[in-house]
Amino acid sequence: MAACPRVGGVSESVESAQTSVEPVQSLIRGLSVIRVFDADHASLTMSDVARRAGLTRATARRILHTLAELGYVASDGRNFSLRPKVLELGHAFLSSMGLPDLVQPHLEQLTEDARESSSVAVLDGRDIIYVARVARHRIMAVAINVGTRFPAYTTSMGRVLLAQLSEEELTSYLQTYERQAFTSHTITDAGQLRDEIGRVREQGWALVDQELEEGLRSIAAPIHDRHGQVVAALNLSASSRRGDAAEVVEHLLPLLLATAAGIDADLSLTAS
Amino acid sequence: MAACPRVGGVSESVESAQTSVEPVQSLIRGLSVIRVFDADHASLTMSDVARRAGLTRATARRILHTLAELGYVASDGRNFSLRPKVLELGHAFLSSMGLPDLVQPHLEQLTEDARESSSVAVLDGRDIIYVARVARHRIMAVAINVGTRFPAYTTSMGRVLLAQLSEEELTSYLQTYERQAFTSHTITDAGQLRDEIGRVREQGWALVDQELEEGLRSIAAPIHDRHGQVVAALNLSASSRRGDAAEVVEHLLPLLLATAAGIDADLSLTAS
Repeated sequence: MAACPRVGGVSESVESAQTSVEPVQSLIRGLSVIRVFDADHASLTMSDVARRAGLTRATARRILHTLAELGYVASDGRNFSLRPKVLELGHAFLSSMGLPDLVQPHLEQLTEDARESSSVAVLDGRDIIYVARVARHRIMAVAINVGTRFPAYTTSMGRVLLAQLSEEELTSYLQTYERQAFTSHTITDAGQLRDEIGRVREQGWALVDQELEEGLRSIAAPIHDRHGQVVAALNLSASSRRGDAAEVVEHLLPLLLATAAGIDADLSLTAS
Repeated sequence: MAACPRVGGVSESVESAQTSVEPVQSLIRGLSVIRVFDADHASLTMSDVARRAGLTRATARRILHTLAELGYVASDGRNFSLRPKVLELGHAFLSSMGLPDLVQPHLEQLTEDARESSSVAVLDGRDIIYVARVARHRIMAVAINVGTRFPAYTTSMGRVLLAQLSEEELTSYLQTYERQAFTSHTITDAGQLRDEIGRVREQGWALVDQELEEGLRSIAAPIHDRHGQVVAALNLSASSRRGDAAEVVEHLLPLLLATAAGIDADLSLTAS
Protein backbone atom coordinates (compact mmCIF):
# COMPACT_ATOMS: atom_id res chain seq x y z
CA MET A 1 0.00 0.00 0.00
CA ALA A 2 1.54 3.23 -1.08
CA ALA A 3 0.16 5.99 0.99
CA CYS A 4 -1.27 5.08 4.28
CA PRO A 5 -2.16 8.54 5.47
CA ARG A 6 1.01 9.57 7.25
CA VAL A 7 0.27 11.75 10.18
CA GLY A 8 3.36 11.23 12.34
CA GLY A 9 2.86 14.42 14.33
CA VAL A 10 0.82 15.67 11.39
CA SER A 11 3.71 16.11 8.96
CA GLU A 12 6.31 13.79 7.49
CA SER A 13 9.53 12.88 9.11
CA VAL A 14 11.97 12.52 6.25
CA GLU A 15 13.24 15.94 7.26
CA SER A 16 15.40 14.48 9.98
CA ALA A 17 17.42 12.56 7.42
CA GLN A 18 17.70 15.34 4.91
CA THR A 19 19.09 18.35 6.68
CA SER A 20 22.08 18.28 4.37
CA VAL A 21 20.02 18.11 1.18
CA GLU A 22 19.43 21.35 -0.67
CA PRO A 23 15.86 21.56 -2.01
CA VAL A 24 15.43 21.92 -5.77
CA GLN A 25 14.01 25.43 -6.08
CA SER A 26 12.94 25.19 -9.70
CA LEU A 27 10.91 22.05 -8.95
CA ILE A 28 9.18 23.87 -6.09
CA ARG A 29 8.47 26.79 -8.43
CA GLY A 30 7.27 24.54 -11.24
CA LEU A 31 4.74 22.75 -9.05
CA SER A 32 3.55 26.08 -7.66
CA VAL A 33 2.92 27.28 -11.23
CA ILE A 34 0.62 24.31 -11.89
CA ARG A 35 -1.32 25.24 -8.76
CA VAL A 36 -1.95 28.89 -9.62
CA PHE A 37 -4.61 27.71 -12.10
CA ASP A 38 -8.13 27.13 -10.74
CA ALA A 39 -11.79 27.69 -11.60
CA ASP A 40 -11.43 31.49 -11.40
CA HIS A 41 -8.00 31.52 -13.06
CA ALA A 42 -8.28 29.00 -15.87
CA SER A 43 -6.41 31.11 -18.42
CA LEU A 44 -3.55 33.36 -17.34
CA THR A 45 -0.95 35.54 -19.00
CA MET A 46 2.70 35.08 -18.17
CA SER A 47 2.55 38.14 -15.91
CA ASP A 48 -0.51 36.75 -14.10
CA VAL A 49 1.31 33.48 -13.48
CA ALA A 50 4.44 35.28 -12.27
CA ARG A 51 2.43 37.43 -9.86
CA ARG A 52 0.27 34.60 -8.50
CA ALA A 53 3.27 32.27 -8.02
CA GLY A 54 5.50 35.00 -6.61
CA LEU A 55 8.09 34.58 -9.37
CA THR A 56 9.95 36.92 -11.68
CA ARG A 57 8.56 37.12 -15.18
CA ALA A 58 11.72 35.50 -16.61
CA THR A 59 11.40 32.54 -14.25
CA ALA A 60 7.68 32.15 -14.95
CA ARG A 61 8.49 32.20 -18.67
CA ARG A 62 11.04 29.40 -18.47
CA ILE A 63 8.77 27.27 -16.31
CA LEU A 64 5.69 27.79 -18.51
CA HIS A 65 7.64 26.90 -21.63
CA THR A 66 9.07 23.81 -19.97
CA LEU A 67 5.59 22.71 -18.88
CA ALA A 68 4.31 23.41 -22.39
CA GLU A 69 7.06 21.29 -23.95
CA LEU A 70 6.16 18.45 -21.61
CA GLY A 71 2.48 18.76 -22.59
CA TYR A 72 1.18 19.95 -19.21
CA VAL A 73 0.39 23.51 -20.32
CA ALA A 74 -1.27 24.93 -23.44
CA SER A 75 -0.77 28.41 -24.83
CA ASP A 76 -2.22 30.52 -27.62
CA GLY A 77 0.90 32.68 -27.50
CA ARG A 78 -0.50 35.10 -24.93
CA ASN A 79 -2.57 33.06 -22.48
CA PHE A 80 -1.63 29.87 -20.70
CA SER A 81 -3.87 27.11 -19.35
CA LEU A 82 -3.45 23.58 -17.99
CA ARG A 83 -3.76 20.57 -20.27
CA PRO A 84 -5.40 17.24 -19.32
CA LYS A 85 -2.01 15.56 -19.10
CA VAL A 86 -1.78 17.10 -15.62
CA LEU A 87 -4.33 14.46 -14.56
CA GLU A 88 -1.68 11.81 -15.10
CA LEU A 89 0.26 13.05 -12.09
CA GLY A 90 -2.74 12.32 -9.85
CA HIS A 91 -3.32 9.10 -11.75
CA ALA A 92 0.22 8.04 -10.80
CA PHE A 93 -0.81 8.30 -7.14
CA LEU A 94 -4.17 6.54 -7.61
CA SER A 95 -2.54 3.75 -9.53
CA SER A 96 0.36 3.37 -7.08
CA MET A 97 -2.13 3.28 -4.22
CA GLY A 98 -4.11 0.37 -5.68
CA LEU A 99 -6.97 1.06 -3.28
CA PRO A 100 -9.23 3.03 -5.66
CA ASP A 101 -9.36 0.16 -8.18
CA LEU A 102 -10.05 -2.35 -5.44
CA VAL A 103 -12.85 -0.35 -3.82
CA GLN A 104 -14.60 0.82 -7.00
CA PRO A 105 -16.89 -2.23 -7.49
CA HIS A 106 -17.72 -2.14 -3.77
CA LEU A 107 -18.73 1.52 -4.03
CA GLU A 108 -20.84 0.81 -7.10
CA GLN A 109 -22.74 -1.93 -5.27
CA LEU A 110 -23.11 0.16 -2.11
CA THR A 111 -24.48 3.16 -4.01
CA GLU A 112 -26.87 0.87 -5.87
CA ASP A 113 -28.13 -0.75 -2.65
CA ALA A 114 -28.24 2.38 -0.50
CA ARG A 115 -29.34 4.73 -3.28
CA GLU A 116 -26.87 7.29 -1.91
CA SER A 117 -23.41 8.48 -2.99
CA SER A 118 -20.48 6.61 -1.50
CA SER A 119 -16.82 7.59 -1.24
CA VAL A 120 -13.42 6.58 0.05
CA ALA A 121 -10.95 9.11 1.46
CA VAL A 122 -7.57 9.21 3.15
CA LEU A 123 -6.14 11.70 5.63
CA ASP A 124 -3.59 14.26 4.39
CA GLY A 125 -2.51 16.82 6.97
CA ARG A 126 -5.55 18.84 8.09
CA ASP A 127 -7.85 17.38 5.46
CA ILE A 128 -9.42 14.29 4.08
CA ILE A 129 -8.89 13.84 0.35
CA TYR A 130 -11.25 11.78 -1.81
CA VAL A 131 -9.59 8.90 -3.68
CA ALA A 132 -12.70 7.13 -5.03
CA ARG A 133 -16.36 8.06 -5.35
CA VAL A 134 -19.58 6.78 -6.89
CA ALA A 135 -22.08 9.61 -6.99
CA ARG A 136 -25.83 9.46 -7.10
CA HIS A 137 -27.97 12.57 -7.15
CA ARG A 138 -26.06 15.66 -6.21
CA ILE A 139 -27.14 16.69 -2.73
CA MET A 140 -24.30 19.02 -1.84
CA ALA A 141 -23.81 22.56 -3.02
CA VAL A 142 -20.27 21.73 -4.17
CA ALA A 143 -19.42 18.91 -6.58
CA ILE A 144 -17.10 16.32 -5.06
CA ASN A 145 -14.46 14.65 -7.22
CA VAL A 146 -11.39 12.55 -6.65
CA GLY A 147 -8.91 15.08 -5.23
CA THR A 148 -11.54 17.13 -3.38
CA ARG A 149 -10.52 18.13 0.16
CA PHE A 150 -12.53 18.87 3.27
CA PRO A 151 -11.26 19.53 6.79
CA ALA A 152 -11.06 16.17 8.57
CA TYR A 153 -12.56 17.42 11.86
CA THR A 154 -15.93 18.23 10.29
CA THR A 155 -16.52 15.13 8.13
CA SER A 156 -17.50 11.57 9.00
CA MET A 157 -14.53 10.06 7.14
CA GLY A 158 -12.23 12.56 8.85
CA ARG A 159 -13.52 11.58 12.29
CA VAL A 160 -12.90 7.90 11.50
CA LEU A 161 -9.35 8.67 10.37
CA LEU A 162 -8.62 10.96 13.32
CA ALA A 163 -9.87 8.19 15.63
CA GLN A 164 -6.95 5.98 14.62
CA LEU A 165 -4.30 8.54 15.62
CA SER A 166 -2.36 8.19 18.87
CA GLU A 167 -3.29 10.61 21.68
CA GLU A 168 -0.15 12.57 20.90
CA GLU A 169 -0.91 12.82 17.19
CA LEU A 170 -4.51 13.86 17.88
CA THR A 171 -3.34 16.56 20.27
CA SER A 172 -0.94 17.82 17.63
CA TYR A 173 -3.76 17.82 15.04
CA LEU A 174 -6.10 19.78 17.29
CA GLN A 175 -3.37 22.28 18.19
CA THR A 176 -1.98 22.75 14.68
CA TYR A 177 -5.08 23.58 12.67
CA GLU A 178 -7.63 26.32 13.22
CA ARG A 179 -11.23 25.20 13.10
CA GLN A 180 -14.10 26.97 11.49
CA ALA A 181 -17.89 26.60 11.98
CA PHE A 182 -19.37 25.77 8.56
CA THR A 183 -22.90 25.55 10.01
CA SER A 184 -24.49 26.15 13.40
CA HIS A 185 -23.91 22.43 14.11
CA THR A 186 -20.14 22.33 13.52
CA ILE A 187 -18.14 21.18 16.54
CA THR A 188 -15.06 23.40 16.82
CA ASP A 189 -14.22 23.07 20.52
CA ALA A 190 -11.14 20.85 21.02
CA GLY A 191 -12.52 19.08 24.08
CA GLN A 192 -15.84 18.31 22.46
CA LEU A 193 -14.10 17.07 19.31
CA ARG A 194 -11.83 14.84 21.35
CA ASP A 195 -14.89 13.34 23.11
CA GLU A 196 -16.65 12.78 19.80
CA ILE A 197 -13.55 11.16 18.25
CA GLY A 198 -13.25 8.93 21.33
CA ARG A 199 -16.85 7.81 20.80
CA VAL A 200 -16.10 7.07 17.13
CA ARG A 201 -13.08 4.98 18.12
CA GLU A 202 -15.23 2.93 20.52
CA GLN A 203 -18.24 2.35 18.30
CA GLY A 204 -16.22 1.84 15.10
CA TRP A 205 -18.11 4.32 12.91
CA ALA A 206 -18.89 8.04 12.74
CA LEU A 207 -22.04 10.02 12.05
CA VAL A 208 -21.71 13.70 11.17
CA ASP A 209 -25.00 15.59 11.34
CA GLN A 210 -25.05 18.76 9.26
CA GLU A 211 -21.65 20.01 10.44
CA LEU A 212 -20.28 20.60 6.94
CA GLU A 213 -23.47 21.71 5.21
CA GLU A 214 -27.06 22.22 6.44
CA GLY A 215 -29.28 19.27 5.54
CA LEU A 216 -26.35 16.93 4.88
CA ARG A 217 -25.62 13.91 7.05
CA SER A 218 -23.03 11.24 6.45
CA ILE A 219 -21.79 8.09 8.13
CA ALA A 220 -18.35 6.55 7.79
CA ALA A 221 -16.44 3.44 8.78
CA PRO A 222 -12.74 2.55 8.66
CA ILE A 223 -11.06 0.36 6.05
CA HIS A 224 -8.21 -1.84 7.30
CA ASP A 225 -5.25 -3.43 5.55
CA ARG A 226 -4.20 -7.04 6.17
CA HIS A 227 -2.29 -5.95 9.25
CA GLY A 228 -5.39 -4.37 10.79
CA GLN A 229 -4.12 -0.82 10.20
CA VAL A 230 -6.71 1.78 9.19
CA VAL A 231 -5.69 2.91 5.70
CA ALA A 232 -8.79 4.81 4.55
CA ALA A 233 -12.41 5.57 5.39
CA LEU A 234 -15.62 4.65 3.56
CA ASN A 235 -18.75 6.77 3.74
CA LEU A 236 -22.33 7.17 2.61
CA SER A 237 -23.90 10.59 2.37
CA ALA A 238 -27.56 10.86 3.26
CA SER A 239 -30.02 13.22 1.65
CA SER A 240 -32.72 14.85 3.79
CA ARG A 241 -35.41 12.39 2.62
CA ARG A 242 -33.65 9.86 4.84
CA GLY A 243 -35.15 11.49 7.91
CA ASP A 244 -33.17 12.28 11.04
CA ALA A 245 -29.83 10.97 12.24
CA ALA A 246 -31.37 7.95 13.98
CA GLU A 247 -33.04 6.85 10.75
CA VAL A 248 -29.77 7.28 8.82
CA VAL A 249 -28.05 4.98 11.29
CA GLU A 250 -30.87 2.44 11.19
CA HIS A 251 -31.08 2.22 7.40
CA LEU A 252 -27.58 2.95 6.14
CA LEU A 253 -25.18 1.74 8.83
CA PRO A 254 -25.70 -2.01 8.18
CA LEU A 255 -24.98 -1.55 4.46
CA LEU A 256 -21.94 0.61 5.23
CA LEU A 257 -20.43 -1.85 7.70
CA ALA A 258 -21.06 -4.82 5.41
CA THR A 259 -19.28 -3.03 2.56
CA ALA A 260 -16.34 -2.03 4.76
CA ALA A 261 -16.00 -5.67 5.84
CA GLY A 262 -16.07 -6.75 2.18
CA ILE A 263 -13.30 -4.30 1.30
CA ASP A 264 -11.24 -5.40 4.32
CA ALA A 265 -11.60 -9.01 3.14
CA ASP A 266 -10.42 -8.10 -0.36
CA LEU A 267 -7.50 -6.11 1.03
CA SER A 268 -6.44 -9.03 3.23
CA LEU A 269 -5.93 -11.04 0.05
CA THR A 270 -3.58 -8.53 -1.59
CA ALA A 271 0.16 -8.49 -1.11
CA SER A 272 1.00 -5.66 1.28
CA MET B 1 -0.31 3.98 -19.49
CA ALA B 2 2.10 6.64 -18.46
CA ALA B 3 3.82 8.16 -21.43
CA CYS B 4 1.88 9.94 -24.09
CA PRO B 5 3.82 11.50 -26.93
CA ARG B 6 2.56 14.85 -28.10
CA VAL B 7 1.08 15.23 -31.54
CA GLY B 8 2.60 17.62 -34.01
CA GLY B 9 -0.36 19.14 -35.81
CA VAL B 10 -3.08 18.09 -33.45
CA SER B 11 -2.10 19.93 -30.30
CA GLU B 12 -0.82 23.31 -29.23
CA SER B 13 2.35 24.74 -30.63
CA VAL B 14 4.04 27.08 -28.25
CA GLU B 15 7.35 25.70 -29.46
CA SER B 16 7.58 28.21 -32.26
CA ALA B 17 7.71 31.09 -29.80
CA GLN B 18 10.12 29.52 -27.38
CA THR B 19 13.18 28.50 -29.31
CA SER B 20 15.27 30.88 -27.22
CA VAL B 21 13.94 29.62 -23.89
CA GLU B 22 16.09 27.09 -22.06
CA PRO B 23 13.93 24.34 -20.48
CA VAL B 24 14.16 23.88 -16.72
CA GLN B 25 15.84 20.48 -16.42
CA SER B 26 15.16 19.96 -12.73
CA LEU B 27 11.44 20.53 -13.27
CA ILE B 28 11.45 17.93 -16.05
CA ARG B 29 13.28 15.52 -13.76
CA GLY B 30 10.98 16.23 -10.81
CA LEU B 31 7.82 15.49 -12.79
CA SER B 32 9.40 12.34 -14.19
CA VAL B 33 10.09 11.17 -10.63
CA ILE B 34 6.39 11.48 -9.73
CA ARG B 35 5.58 9.34 -12.75
CA VAL B 36 7.92 6.44 -11.97
CA PHE B 37 5.41 5.33 -9.31
CA ASP B 38 2.54 3.10 -10.41
CA ALA B 39 0.55 0.03 -9.37
CA ASP B 40 3.56 -2.27 -9.70
CA HIS B 41 6.00 0.28 -8.25
CA ALA B 42 4.14 1.85 -5.35
CA SER B 43 7.09 1.88 -2.99
CA LEU B 44 10.61 2.46 -4.28
CA THR B 45 14.07 2.95 -2.85
CA MET B 46 16.12 5.94 -3.89
CA SER B 47 18.15 3.70 -6.21
CA ASP B 48 14.96 2.34 -7.80
CA VAL B 49 13.73 5.87 -8.45
CA ALA B 50 17.08 6.94 -9.89
CA ARG B 51 17.18 3.94 -12.23
CA ARG B 52 13.56 4.21 -13.38
CA ALA B 53 13.81 7.98 -13.98
CA GLY B 54 17.25 7.76 -15.60
CA LEU B 55 18.85 10.03 -13.00
CA THR B 56 21.96 9.91 -10.87
CA ARG B 57 21.39 8.83 -7.28
CA ALA B 58 22.38 12.30 -6.03
CA THR B 59 19.83 13.99 -8.28
CA ALA B 60 17.09 11.53 -7.33
CA ARG B 61 17.90 12.17 -3.68
CA ARG B 62 17.54 15.95 -3.96
CA ILE B 63 14.30 15.63 -5.92
CA LEU B 64 12.76 13.07 -3.55
CA HIS B 65 13.61 15.19 -0.53
CA THR B 66 12.17 18.28 -2.19
CA LEU B 67 8.95 16.40 -3.04
CA ALA B 68 8.83 15.08 0.53
CA GLU B 69 9.19 18.57 1.98
CA LEU B 70 6.34 19.76 -0.22
CA GLY B 71 4.16 16.86 0.97
CA TYR B 72 3.98 15.00 -2.36
CA VAL B 73 6.14 12.06 -1.30
CA ALA B 74 6.24 9.96 1.88
CA SER B 75 9.24 8.05 3.15
CA ASP B 76 10.02 5.66 5.97
CA GLY B 77 13.71 6.50 5.61
CA ARG B 78 14.39 3.77 3.07
CA ASN B 79 11.34 3.53 0.80
CA PHE B 80 9.50 6.32 -0.96
CA SER B 81 5.87 6.48 -2.09
CA LEU B 82 3.48 9.12 -3.40
CA ARG B 83 1.17 10.99 -1.02
CA PRO B 84 -2.45 11.99 -1.78
CA LYS B 85 -1.42 15.62 -2.17
CA VAL B 86 -0.34 14.67 -5.70
CA LEU B 87 -4.06 14.53 -6.52
CA GLU B 88 -4.21 18.29 -6.06
CA LEU B 89 -2.19 18.80 -9.23
CA GLY B 90 -4.86 17.03 -11.28
CA HIS B 91 -7.51 18.82 -9.26
CA ALA B 92 -5.99 22.14 -10.41
CA PHE B 93 -6.71 21.09 -13.99
CA LEU B 94 -10.24 19.81 -13.27
CA SER B 95 -11.09 22.95 -11.38
CA SER B 96 -9.56 25.28 -13.99
CA MET B 97 -11.46 23.45 -16.69
CA GLY B 98 -14.83 24.02 -15.02
CA LEU B 99 -16.39 21.41 -17.28
CA PRO B 100 -16.34 18.47 -14.82
CA ASP B 101 -18.37 20.41 -12.24
CA LEU B 102 -20.84 21.55 -14.86
CA VAL B 103 -21.38 18.11 -16.38
CA GLN B 104 -21.55 16.11 -13.14
CA PRO B 105 -25.32 16.53 -12.46
CA HIS B 106 -26.03 15.80 -16.13
CA LEU B 107 -24.02 12.57 -15.92
CA GLU B 108 -25.81 11.57 -12.73
CA GLN B 109 -29.21 12.03 -14.36
CA LEU B 110 -28.13 10.26 -17.55
CA THR B 111 -26.77 7.26 -15.68
CA GLU B 112 -29.97 7.13 -13.62
CA ASP B 113 -32.19 7.26 -16.73
CA ALA B 114 -30.10 4.99 -18.95
CA ARG B 115 -28.99 2.64 -16.16
CA GLU B 116 -25.52 2.64 -17.76
CA SER B 117 -22.22 4.35 -16.88
CA SER B 118 -21.67 7.75 -18.48
CA SER B 119 -18.45 9.73 -18.95
CA VAL B 120 -16.95 12.89 -20.39
CA ALA B 121 -13.48 12.92 -21.98
CA VAL B 122 -11.19 15.28 -23.86
CA LEU B 123 -8.53 14.58 -26.48
CA ASP B 124 -4.87 14.68 -25.43
CA GLY B 125 -2.40 13.62 -28.09
CA ARG B 126 -3.05 10.03 -29.12
CA ASP B 127 -5.56 9.40 -26.36
CA ILE B 128 -8.80 10.44 -24.80
CA ILE B 129 -8.57 11.19 -21.11
CA TYR B 130 -11.56 10.92 -18.76
CA VAL B 131 -12.43 14.13 -16.92
CA ALA B 132 -15.77 13.11 -15.38
CA ARG B 133 -17.57 9.82 -14.87
CA VAL B 134 -20.62 8.39 -13.15
CA ALA B 135 -20.26 4.62 -12.99
CA ARG B 136 -22.91 2.00 -12.67
CA HIS B 137 -22.10 -1.70 -12.58
CA ARG B 138 -18.59 -2.42 -13.72
CA ILE B 139 -18.79 -3.98 -17.16
CA MET B 140 -15.20 -3.54 -18.26
CA ALA B 141 -12.20 -5.57 -17.19
CA VAL B 142 -10.33 -2.40 -16.21
CA ALA B 143 -11.67 0.20 -13.76
CA ILE B 144 -12.06 3.63 -15.34
CA ASN B 145 -11.37 6.74 -13.29
CA VAL B 146 -10.83 10.40 -13.96
CA GLY B 147 -7.37 10.46 -15.57
CA THR B 148 -7.76 7.10 -17.33
CA ARG B 149 -6.54 7.08 -20.94
CA PHE B 150 -7.55 5.03 -23.96
CA PRO B 151 -6.39 5.42 -27.57
CA ALA B 152 -8.80 7.84 -29.27
CA TYR B 153 -9.07 5.83 -32.50
CA THR B 154 -10.72 2.87 -30.79
CA THR B 155 -13.27 4.61 -28.51
CA SER B 156 -16.57 6.31 -29.24
CA MET B 157 -15.54 9.55 -27.51
CA GLY B 158 -12.24 9.49 -29.37
CA ARG B 159 -14.02 9.15 -32.74
CA VAL B 160 -16.22 12.14 -31.89
CA LEU B 161 -13.17 14.21 -30.93
CA LEU B 162 -11.16 13.12 -33.98
CA ALA B 163 -14.15 14.08 -36.16
CA GLN B 164 -13.68 17.74 -35.20
CA LEU B 165 -10.06 17.87 -36.40
CA SER B 166 -9.16 19.47 -39.72
CA GLU B 167 -8.20 17.11 -42.57
CA GLU B 168 -4.57 18.04 -42.00
CA GLU B 169 -4.72 17.37 -38.27
CA LEU B 170 -6.47 14.04 -38.82
CA THR B 171 -3.83 12.99 -41.35
CA SER B 172 -1.13 13.90 -38.86
CA TYR B 173 -2.93 11.89 -36.13
CA LEU B 174 -3.23 8.82 -38.34
CA GLN B 175 0.41 9.06 -39.45
CA THR B 176 1.91 9.77 -36.03
CA TYR B 177 0.48 6.95 -33.93
CA GLU B 178 0.70 3.22 -34.40
CA ARG B 179 -2.57 1.41 -34.05
CA GLN B 180 -3.18 -1.86 -32.33
CA ALA B 181 -6.07 -4.34 -32.59
CA PHE B 182 -7.52 -4.79 -29.10
CA THR B 183 -10.17 -7.22 -30.36
CA SER B 184 -11.01 -8.86 -33.66
CA HIS B 185 -13.35 -5.90 -34.31
CA THR B 186 -10.81 -3.08 -33.92
CA ILE B 187 -10.44 -0.89 -37.00
CA THR B 188 -6.73 -0.19 -37.50
CA ASP B 189 -6.61 0.61 -41.24
CA ALA B 190 -6.11 4.35 -41.82
CA GLY B 191 -8.52 4.53 -44.77
CA GLN B 192 -11.28 2.66 -42.94
CA LEU B 193 -10.81 4.82 -39.86
CA ARG B 194 -10.98 7.97 -41.95
CA ASP B 195 -14.27 6.77 -43.51
CA GLU B 196 -15.70 5.93 -40.10
CA ILE B 197 -14.66 9.31 -38.67
CA GLY B 198 -16.26 11.03 -41.69
CA ARG B 199 -19.52 9.18 -40.95
CA VAL B 200 -19.33 10.30 -37.29
CA ARG B 201 -18.83 13.91 -38.39
CA GLU B 202 -21.92 13.72 -40.62
CA GLN B 203 -24.28 11.95 -38.23
CA GLY B 204 -23.11 13.82 -35.13
CA TRP B 205 -22.47 10.78 -32.93
CA ALA B 206 -20.30 7.66 -32.82
CA LEU B 207 -20.98 4.04 -32.01
CA VAL B 208 -18.03 1.76 -31.26
CA ASP B 209 -18.92 -1.91 -31.31
CA GLN B 210 -16.53 -4.11 -29.31
CA GLU B 211 -13.36 -2.53 -30.71
CA LEU B 212 -11.80 -1.86 -27.28
CA GLU B 213 -13.10 -4.92 -25.43
CA GLU B 214 -15.24 -7.91 -26.47
CA GLY B 215 -18.86 -7.45 -25.41
CA LEU B 216 -18.50 -3.71 -24.82
CA ARG B 217 -20.33 -1.14 -26.94
CA SER B 218 -20.47 2.57 -26.41
CA ILE B 219 -21.99 5.61 -28.06
CA ALA B 220 -20.75 9.18 -27.84
CA ALA B 221 -21.75 12.68 -28.86
CA PRO B 222 -19.86 15.98 -28.91
CA ILE B 223 -20.17 18.75 -26.32
CA HIS B 224 -19.89 22.31 -27.67
CA ASP B 225 -18.92 25.58 -26.00
CA ARG B 226 -20.86 28.82 -26.58
CA HIS B 227 -18.91 29.39 -29.81
CA GLY B 228 -19.98 26.03 -31.23
CA GLN B 229 -16.50 24.52 -30.79
CA VAL B 230 -16.33 20.88 -29.73
CA VAL B 231 -14.64 20.92 -26.32
CA ALA B 232 -15.31 17.38 -25.06
CA ALA B 233 -17.27 14.21 -25.74
CA LEU B 234 -20.03 12.54 -23.73
CA ASN B 235 -20.64 8.79 -23.79
CA LEU B 236 -22.74 5.94 -22.50
CA SER B 237 -21.31 2.46 -22.26
CA ALA B 238 -23.69 -0.41 -22.98
CA SER B 239 -23.56 -3.78 -21.33
CA SER B 240 -24.32 -6.90 -23.35
CA ARG B 241 -27.90 -7.17 -21.99
CA ARG B 242 -28.68 -4.18 -24.23
CA GLY B 243 -28.67 -6.42 -27.27
CA ASP B 244 -26.91 -5.60 -30.50
CA ALA B 245 -25.64 -2.29 -31.84
CA ALA B 246 -28.99 -1.36 -33.40
CA GLU B 247 -30.75 -1.77 -30.08
CA VAL B 248 -28.10 0.34 -28.33
CA VAL B 249 -28.72 3.12 -30.82
CA GLU B 250 -32.50 2.83 -30.49
CA HIS B 251 -32.60 2.88 -26.70
CA LEU B 252 -29.61 4.95 -25.64
CA LEU B 253 -28.99 7.48 -28.42
CA PRO B 254 -32.03 9.69 -27.63
CA LEU B 255 -31.00 9.97 -23.97
CA LEU B 256 -27.40 10.67 -24.96
CA LEU B 257 -28.28 13.42 -27.44
CA ALA B 258 -30.76 15.06 -25.04
CA THR B 259 -28.08 15.17 -22.34
CA ALA B 260 -25.47 16.57 -24.73
CA ALA B 261 -27.94 19.31 -25.71
CA GLY B 262 -28.58 20.08 -22.04
CA ILE B 263 -24.84 20.40 -21.35
CA ASP B 264 -24.39 22.61 -24.45
CA ALA B 265 -27.20 24.86 -23.16
CA ASP B 266 -25.56 25.15 -19.74
CA LEU B 267 -22.17 25.88 -21.35
CA SER B 268 -23.68 28.61 -23.51
CA LEU B 269 -24.63 30.43 -20.30
CA THR B 270 -21.10 30.43 -18.85
CA ALA B 271 -18.51 33.08 -19.51
CA SER B 272 -15.99 31.69 -21.97
